[in-house]
Amino acid sequence: MDFELPITRQACIAADAADPLRALKDHFLLPEAVIYLDGNSLGARPRASLEVATRVLEQEWGTGLIRSWNSAGWFELPGRLGNKLAALLGAGQDEVVMTDTTSLNLFKCLAAALRIQKAADPARKVILTERDNFPTDIYMAEGIVDFLDQGYSVRLLDDELTLADALGPDVAVVALSHVNYRTGAMWDMAATTADVHDGGALVVWDLAHAAGAVPVDLVGANADFAVGCTYKYLNGGPGSPAFIWVNARHQDRFWQPLSGWWGHARPFAMEDSYEPATGIGRFLCGTQPIVSLALVECGLDISLATDMAALYGKSLALTDTFISLVEARRGDHPLELITPLDHARRGSHVSYKHPEGYAVMAALIARGIIGDYREPHVLRFGVTPLYVGFTDIFDAVDALFDILDNRLWDTPQFRERLAVT
Amino acid sequence: MDFELPITRQACIAADAADPLRALKDHFLLPEAVIYLDGNSLGARPRASLEVATRVLEQEWGTGLIRSWNSAGWFELPGRLGNKLAALLGAGQDEVVMTDTTSLNLFKCLAAALRIQKAADPARKVILTERDNFPTDIYMAEGIVDFLDQGYSVRLLDDELTLADALGPDVAVVALSHVNYRTGAMWDMAATTADVHDGGALVVWDLAHAAGAVPVDLVGANADFAVGCTYKYLNGGPGSPAFIWVNARHQDRFWQPLSGWWGHARPFAMEDSYEPATGIGRFLCGTQPIVSLALVECGLDISLATDMAALYGKSLALTDTFISLVEARRGDHPLELITPLDHARRGSHVSYKHPEGYAVMAALIARGIIGDYREPHVLRFGVTPLYVGFTDIFDAVDALFDILDNRLWDTPQFRERLAVT
Repeated sequence: MDFELPITRQACIAADAADPLRALKDHFLLPEAVIYLDGNSLGARPRASLEVATRVLEQEWGTGLIRSWNSAGWFELPGRLGNKLAALLGAGQDEVVMTDTTSLNLFKCLAAALRIQKAADPARKVILTERDNFPTDIYMAEGIVDFLDQGYSVRLLDDELTLADALGPDVAVVALSHVNYRTGAMWDMAATTADVHDGGALVVWDLAHAAGAVPVDLVGANADFAVGCTYKYLNGGPGSPAFIWVNARHQDRFWQPLSGWWGHARPFAMEDSYEPATGIGRFLCGTQPIVSLALVECGLDISLATDMAALYGKSLALTDTFISLVEARRGDHPLELITPLDHARRGSHVSYKHPEGYAVMAALIARGIIGDYREPHVLRFGVTPLYVGFTDIFDAVDALFDILDNRLWDTPQFRERLAVT
Repeated sequence: MDFELPITRQACIAADAADPLRALKDHFLLPEAVIYLDGNSLGARPRASLEVATRVLEQEWGTGLIRSWNSAGWFELPGRLGNKLAALLGAGQDEVVMTDTTSLNLFKCLAAALRIQKAADPARKVILTERDNFPTDIYMAEGIVDFLDQGYSVRLLDDELTLADALGPDVAVVALSHVNYRTGAMWDMAATTADVHDGGALVVWDLAHAAGAVPVDLVGANADFAVGCTYKYLNGGPGSPAFIWVNARHQDRFWQPLSGWWGHARPFAMEDSYEPATGIGRFLCGTQPIVSLALVECGLDISLATDMAALYGKSLALTDTFISLVEARRGDHPLELITPLDHARRGSHVSYKHPEGYAVMAALIARGIIGDYREPHVLRFGVTPLYVGFTDIFDAVDALFDILDNRLWDTPQFRERLAVT
């Protein structure tokens, strides 16, 4: 699918009319007078979600009660939804489960990787990650290292330090975000995985800003572990459960330390000692929030109705359009693009630094153009091609420059910080 | 409140009519022709839940979108609901958060306790728990010990071994369930906590079968840690998020290793190093399933409309009635009561061993008397006084003896094991 870059509103309208993915927007319910460019933080609500919630509440919980663990397939949900998601990740069947949070799943992967390395090469005691990684990924690595208290440490990759330089013989595992949450920069997963393996380390990919946003091929890249969330590009609902993928070659090599009943080989035998299930099942832990988990299927089914190549092609055309429109009107405004121009390195959002970024974004949100703000100074515009069109992009950039050209951001109202930014 | 024990159906009907808590049942939607005695596994559905789910989906997620983290108070939910729950636990304000699963919260507590002891008395390397504890509690302890790989171990308390005998100078932390999931036996929390402290150890109470079921006074008992779930007696919905309480004297002594963004002192500053929030906030980790979390409030508000003394008084009258009715009809049936007769040691369910327990329970469920089965051979009948009445108990016992007297359980249909039992 090729898009010619539309740089007038009329051309954007035409591009939307010609967009073969346009009908997918009808599967979502978005408020009137909102242009939603924050699907990389919380995806929009699928139309089907209320029906599914009503079914789970009325029929499954209300009428089925405890019987629904069998009759409504609750016990199968983490694996069944994981198998559905696998198609979007280049993963095999029975390699993914949907469970817990991204942070916790990262903990499981890091713990597993450290244990594998401890057996193979005990001198490898460093978790290598990026200083610019999503903070919780760094925090979880710090937590595990502090808790082990056995000479493990976290090393942060700076811009100045290349991965190759940092990959010493002491590195056990590398934790990277496939798409950076701030900049939208994307690692080459296959090449980077090969580099990590050449350095003797294992790699955990955080797909929070990648799953459902860019083509991912975990098996093709020969990755070791991956985690990610379902409430961004997969539109699973606020805080919907996360996922975890483990390369089949690692699955049975250890048991991760969050060893709850759901990961047991015989969870209902009530045995007094843990025996991990074979395969990916041992990455489950405790009882999952069934209502939130069941809702994930609504968004997932929409993504599965198309394919990642088509979605990502449209995404690149949308982010290209955004960047071109900004370039055309930038003038003297101190807007700094921090998203890579190179398609091969770009995820599905566009970010600019602006010294008054917080107030500028607040002014945009006040008129219904919803992106978000990330420290420091970053205006972030997420593009979910399932429901964002070219005219949305045009109108968003138009509003941005109305706000910038007329300093409409410069009010106490827009400078006031909210609890969650 | 005193109940005279009703042992005829007419007396049960009269007892229900005189029950001052009877109106609470109207807050729940239970299917017709079901007597629900499994609220200790999954509580019934509050009537308000569909309205709350609809509000969260339509207004908060659908219309508010990402803005709802502020405008709908999502960010405040774990603490706000924790503060509401505190009243049922004898806990103070800002001492409880609702988050993650019971298993994970137990991991946090055990990790914290081990770290505290490591600083105070490094020779204490044993996690002491009961062989008859809920298996996931044992499994989580095994996971932590295996992962640390530093000479830590799990010691299981058998019936033969008293707590006093097992509490050696090597015990760091004792993990006990306040009410046993199988037998319904209840520990004396204050006396046991004092014993554990005398032995130099810390105690974690699992309140899964206690919260909302029996009076709990965590501060009064001077306990150290507590965890529990909200989907049993608190009627939060299938797999609804769990809770964690930490005595204020411990909260700032360490940071638990599941150190995600939500536990950071400044979660949106996007700092590249973890700094724990002060207080109970540091026991939060990753993004929570908002729909499932919000639904917890429906059940919680019903429990808060009465008080635990009244609820527990009715619960004991109901379990006494159950036991008396069974005694009256037991005859030669190999039914063994494994729940304590002593009120001071009884939770809110009644359990009997029967060699054909699985098939007997399947036959009961087939006629709408829903209890559950637990290995080995245990028929378990949960009593939630919010929606269970005396006539329900009479009819359930009557059905039980119809099934036993006429061997109605003895069919292939009832012997066939389901995935989840």
